[in-house]
Amino acid sequence: MSQISIGESSERASEIKNRLTAFMDEYIYPNESVYYSQVANGERWKILPLIEELKARARTAGLWNLFLPESDLGPGLTNLEYAPLCEIMGRVTWSAEVFNCSAPDTGNMEVLVRYGSPEQKEEWLAPLLAGEIRSCFAMTEPDVASSDATSIKTSIVRRGDNWIINGRKWWTSGAGDPRCRFAILLGRSSPDAPRHLQQSMIIVPLNAPGVSINRMLTLFGYDDAPHGHAEVNFENVEVPIANMILGEGRGFEIAQGRLGPGRIHHCMRLIGLAERALELMCQRVQSRVAFGRKLSEMGSIRQDIAQSRIEIEQARLLVMKAALMMDTQGNRAARQEIAMIKVVAPIMAQRIIDRAIQSHGGAGVSQDTFLAAAWAGARSLRLADGPDEVHLESIARLELKRYD
Amino acid sequence: MSQISIGESSERASEIKNRLTAFMDEYIYPNESVYYSQVANGERWKILPLIEELKARARTAGLWNLFLPESDLGPGLTNLEYAPLCEIMGRVTWSAEVFNCSAPDTGNMEVLVRYGSPEQKEEWLAPLLAGEIRSCFAMTEPDVASSDATSIKTSIVRRGDNWIINGRKWWTSGAGDPRCRFAILLGRSSPDAPRHLQQSMIIVPLNAPGVSINRMLTLFGYDDAPHGHAEVNFENVEVPIANMILGEGRGFEIAQGRLGPGRIHHCMRLIGLAERALELMCQRVQSRVAFGRKLSEMGSIRQDIAQSRIEIEQARLLVMKAALMMDTQGNRAARQEIAMIKVVAPIMAQRIIDRAIQSHGGAGVSQDTFLAAAWAGARSLRLADGPDEVHLESIARLELKRYD
Amino acid sequence: MSQISIGESSERASEIKNRLTAFMDEYIYPNESVYYSQVANGERWKILPLIEELKARARTAGLWNLFLPESDLGPGLTNLEYAPLCEIMGRVTWSAEVFNCSAPDTGNMEVLVRYGSPEQKEEWLAPLLAGEIRSCFAMTEPDVASSDATSIKTSIVRRGDNWIINGRKWWTSGAGDPRCRFAILLGRSSPDAPRHLQQSMIIVPLNAPGVSINRMLTLFGYDDAPHGHAEVNFENVEVPIANMILGEGRGFEIAQGRLGPGRIHHCMRLIGLAERALELMCQRVQSRVAFGRKLSEMGSIRQDIAQSRIEIEQARLLVMKAALMMDTQGNRAARQEIAMIKVVAPIMAQRIIDRAIQSHGGAGVSQDTFLAAAWAGARSLRLADGPDEVHLESIARLELKRYD
Amino acid sequence: MSQISIGESSERASEIKNRLTAFMDEYIYPNESVYYSQVANGERWKILPLIEELKARARTAGLWNLFLPESDLGPGLTNLEYAPLCEIMGRVTWSAEVFNCSAPDTGNMEVLVRYGSPEQKEEWLAPLLAGEIRSCFAMTEPDVASSDATSIKTSIVRRGDNWIINGRKWWTSGAGDPRCRFAILLGRSSPDAPRHLQQSMIIVPLNAPGVSINRMLTLFGYDDAPHGHAEVNFENVEVPIANMILGEGRGFEIAQGRLGPGRIHHCMRLIGLAERALELMCQRVQSRVAFGRKLSEMGSIRQDIAQSRIEIEQARLLVMKAALMMDTQGNRAARQEIAMIKVVAPIMAQRIIDRAIQSHGGAGVSQDTFLAAAWAGARSLRLADGPDEVHLESIARLELKRYD
Repeated sequence: MSQISIGESSERASEIKNRLTAFMDEYIYPNESVYYSQVANGERWKILPLIEELKARARTAGLWNLFLPESDLGPGLTNLEYAPLCEIMGRVTWSAEVFNCSAPDTGNMEVLVRYGSPEQKEEWLAPLLAGEIRSCFAMTEPDVASSDATSIKTSIVRRGDNWIINGRKWWTSGAGDPRCRFAILLGRSSPDAPRHLQQSMIIVPLNAPGVSINRMLTLFGYDDAPHGHAEVNFENVEVPIANMILGEGRGFEIAQGRLGPGRIHHCMRLIGLAERALELMCQRVQSRVAFGRKLSEMGSIRQDIAQSRIEIEQARLLVMKAALMMDTQGNRAARQEIAMIKVVAPIMAQRIIDRAIQSHGGAGVSQDTFLAAAWAGARSLRLADGPDEVHLESIARLELKRYD
Repeated sequence: MSQISIGESSERASEIKNRLTAFMDEYIYPNESVYYSQVANGERWKILPLIEELKARARTAGLWNLFLPESDLGPGLTNLEYAPLCEIMGRVTWSAEVFNCSAPDTGNMEVLVRYGSPEQKEEWLAPLLAGEIRSCFAMTEPDVASSDATSIKTSIVRRGDNWIINGRKWWTSGAGDPRCRFAILLGRSSPDAPRHLQQSMIIVPLNAPGVSINRMLTLFGYDDAPHGHAEVNFENVEVPIANMILGEGRGFEIAQGRLGPGRIHHCMRLIGLAERALELMCQRVQSRVAFGRKLSEMGSIRQDIAQSRIEIEQARLLVMKAALMMDTQGNRAARQEIAMIKVVAPIMAQRIIDRAIQSHGGAGVSQDTFLAAAWAGARSLRLADGPDEVHLESIARLELKRYD
Repeated sequence: MSQISIGESSERASEIKNRLTAFMDEYIYPNESVYYSQVANGERWKILPLIEELKARARTAGLWNLFLPESDLGPGLTNLEYAPLCEIMGRVTWSAEVFNCSAPDTGNMEVLVRYGSPEQKEEWLAPLLAGEIRSCFAMTEPDVASSDATSIKTSIVRRGDNWIINGRKWWTSGAGDPRCRFAILLGRSSPDAPRHLQQSMIIVPLNAPGVSINRMLTLFGYDDAPHGHAEVNFENVEVPIANMILGEGRGFEIAQGRLGPGRIHHCMRLIGLAERALELMCQRVQSRVAFGRKLSEMGSIRQDIAQSRIEIEQARLLVMKAALMMDTQGNRAARQEIAMIKVVAPIMAQRIIDRAIQSHGGAGVSQDTFLAAAWAGARSLRLADGPDEVHLESIARLELKRYD
Repeated sequence: MSQISIGESSERASEIKNRLTAFMDEYIYPNESVYYSQVANGERWKILPLIEELKARARTAGLWNLFLPESDLGPGLTNLEYAPLCEIMGRVTWSAEVFNCSAPDTGNMEVLVRYGSPEQKEEWLAPLLAGEIRSCFAMTEPDVASSDATSIKTSIVRRGDNWIINGRKWWTSGAGDPRCRFAILLGRSSPDAPRHLQQSMIIVPLNAPGVSINRMLTLFGYDDAPHGHAEVNFENVEVPIANMILGEGRGFEIAQGRLGPGRIHHCMRLIGLAERALELMCQRVQSRVAFGRKLSEMGSIRQDIAQSRIEIEQARLLVMKAALMMDTQGNRAARQEIAMIKVVAPIMAQRIIDRAIQSHGGAGVSQDTFLAAAWAGARSLRLADGPDEVHLESIARLELKRYD
């Protein structure tokens, strides 16, 4: 019998949730300002001591690699069990990394767990799982509508024992991090194959000759250092044959597997982010007075709060349904639900954060709260992994199919 | 462990669901036009032969009084088990009565089951449960903002062995039905008691001297015959002492119990109504051609369909959560969830039906589909049982309380 | 220099406006309940004495045929001058007829003024201008997407000195009125001509053999008697050659001219309707108390009022701009503006009326105010003369054209 | 007769508009990348050579101080005449300064023109009008809800021949600019006076001892260098008596005069910004292909374009109406219109820019177009000069007053 737990959870997941909450209370929330001051001081693309210190603590605390479903490389939680944990991490935008649960590494680890060769696992997966290195995912290209992945142009050409890669990628997130060791790159290896068999995924070490970071992109003014979003050039980059994942032309097959969980993790985190924005808003309007009344006594603000609660509840339930379907029926059967939550969660978060910003006045748009930066992140997720329009189209296609 | 079932359900509930679906297919959908032609011909306030015939069949089929939670007067389903059944009935606006599951009788039966005296149960509850009579609920008054129930003015005054009732009620739904035998009336019996102990609920036979139907109201042009919405005058109506329910001044206490399930039943039905509107829309746009293309190929219509699917899913999950909380934690603990779904479901249904109307062109606003009348019904539920504004205020109050 | 007057107007238009306002105050508002009681009593499809009486008064008062631009058959006002007058009439949904300014007669008169032969003018236009007869417009068909006028199927076939008409039309508004003497019908006369030259407009007397009213349609439960919306059958209807307007295959050419002003008149009236709904809302919330406060003190209601004022102002200005462009640059040059206001005005009116309904509680959806019926009318105008989607598409096409 | 010109304008304004357009084409658009590279290189708080060069050209071209209504210090245009010019400048966010028409200097100049003493005019106004110095406006405070100006806490205390100022201000825009010479500061000088007579405005030289910039604020990640938004401390700052503007306790009186035009200028610029975003969107979707079709062929994108056109037109007309009312009836009579446009314009711009961002994919949120930064600016204007909620409240209050 398929079920969604509400409020409660499996015993194992509950126990982890309690420990995670305690960890957040003890180590994450109290260090938020430390984090931002470490980011602000000195070089932008650097290793933050705070993160390394907290990672060690989290690993010791058994709060590590929680995202991997049904795996013995972590606690092996289901997607449904992971959802409330991921939500908690989402409350502080930078905290997921502390638990080795941050994008894009989680997606890359999942690819390597599922499709990597033993050698790939040893060389690239093991240090990622250990949190010793970071990775990135090079898919989107500036010159084509990457929402249509068949239009990807970066070429992967065989030459002797190597693949030669040429192309330009952008929004390669995480590439700013000095610990970032490799990219999983999607490129066209087989231009003459059928449309969905032309693309491959391949591991590209970032220190390979010909790989260069062209520039770092900003997201509504934020560079998101030290993680960062890079535009990366690949010029005649040589990569050993063994770096091809799963096999030539199987890029889409992998992408299907990779994107489902990745999308839903973002959504889970956005639930947590929205919850925290609502908390902040409630605290603000309880304490701020204008025109002789607490802001919390004003009817339109009360409606904003009520609507926010409604939207969060509905989004969370949809995330849980999607997670449950992935667990019980597989990612493919859940694709309408995944598309739905991919549309719902960022818009919901954007809206709720925007209301929280409005209730904060000038503080809301500034660096004094996490709100403005969180809004920018939520906004970007209406484009990342495909724009809303593409997902709405998928939902409609699946819906109309029933009436053919 | 608290859980929501998705798609699947308890074995007992599943079995009933299958039988209900079969009944709908065999007896309800094929009789929709029969229903409307029986309504259209002759007198408006009459007994429809079709309904009586189908009631007998449904009772024989064991599809009777499904709504009563944890009771041996029906199958005794939980709210969560009842939700998908109620949703199915909601697909045809008049079908719930066939299963003796229609408002306002369900709410009245629940009141009498919980709070009625043995004599009240025998005289009023038994024939209601048997579907032999109908009842109505006289609460809203034209002269006061009835959303604030403390403002109700109808007086209930003791005189000897009787209560004397004076006042005017409206939106007394179901009073048009010739089988409607009594009203449960909310009135002020104890004007000097504390605010929430002034009101009582009392059983008023509709044939008591002094009860008169002033006029029937229309809802966006619909009189909703033969059920109808009445404005009822109560002039020196004498009612025996024994008709008081639970006790003087306990009207609010009863209302709390009555309104929770009633509200959520409306919401469950609205989910079914919205699903059917979306089905109709999909079928329409697949078959209609304009400017050389099927309507279903037009991008904005596809987005409407996708959004509708998203909104239905989220509303259904929220209904299920509210139902589960009522089952496991009680109506009081679930009051924020009940308020949320009371706001969400009518607006959702209104919006989806409106899109379906738009896709039907002139047919959508006419009598050729169920859409226009269904829209009016959904719209009225943004006011019935309290306007949206009152529920949003409750949600906000509960939310802000956490930060006091 | 092209200008929009705000608040003020040409001297002539100002003077008429003052007289019209006085007429409304003296004869229309005080007779609203009389109108509805005349409609309610007896036969539905009848002549209302009130209307005939008021028409005589209005004609005497020189408030007659105000809509005809630059014509000596009325005061010959420009569209811009007519806008505020039409808005005032729109405040009472049935009042335009009193001034012989009601649809669809206005559109038909305009067609005959512009394109009618001298004989057509004498026989059909003269009594229409005199308010002695009524007319209707038979365009929409139940079996095709009439928003794409090229799909109209009703056939007009030449046989000797007659045209033979076969087809079925619906939403032929005004055909319920016993005074309705003829229809202007759009049908396909020239199936082999290029797409936009296949259709013709022809005058069909409603008493011609073969013309029959199949049924009257309802609009959200309203039959809009005694005007009404008919489904009309045309079976081998013979019409003299002389009844063809302008010439065979010129139906689209006429439609272009007919629809522009017709569309904008509806919009002007909707402005007035929305203003009156807002007035009613303000009065209601000033006088109604709930939870110890006037409704007008509640923040969310105040925001609704503010938003309504904003939306009305913007819509009115857009109507005025469109009118001015029609006056100074012609209907064709104004087609983006006409399409814009056709989308804006009904949605604006719908939204504002809906807020007014909500503030009225149960009274708002009933027959106790004009709101529910007015809402239904506004809703239907999102379909009449083409659904929103078609107009949005036109606006987009014109916008994108600039970048070709 | 009061009128709004559409498309056309007074001869004088038309002539200036042509020259301004030509200037934009020749000097502004071609220099956009130069501007951003001068900003990006080196120190953030500096004088940009490009701006100084273009200012000289604009002044020579007679495109200088266009904003001052009815004044001989510039061409003395009316607000209505200035509207289309200001809109044009708004197309490039940094261009208004080139014409000495940028905020907050325009507001400050207006204050000094209207209320300044001859000495104040000579010392502070003259160099501002000449573009030799810049100024800022110190009103908002971090510790109070500054939307309620009576809550401003910064104190202005008389001591001998000086005023002593103590307090903290933020969102003091323009204070980052090395040319910024003084602030007009709003503070409480008369705590014992009636509520609206407690505040004064005073000129504070930024180099006065005790004035220090605490930090620069970011707006969604943008520091808006070299203009900037500062948090400024005032500690025992001594200012000569002569720096008080108009007189003690007259701060609100000045604010009324200052804020009206300032608000509407922002709105005019936002119209231009939105127009340009729509242009960029149209160009983008005409040139970008996904899934085998131009983006411009996709129905939902076409609807976005149509809606954007509709929203821009309506907002522009409302700006023009407000401007006209200010010109003909005064700022006070126009206050409902000013409040309306203050609510409408930023939301409209935000929405249109957001659609343009969405159509650009990753480029839209990055530094590759002006869109992301422009969005942040539009968002901040929903707070600057009072949050939307305060203006909606004013509109509602004025609306309801008619029914008292």
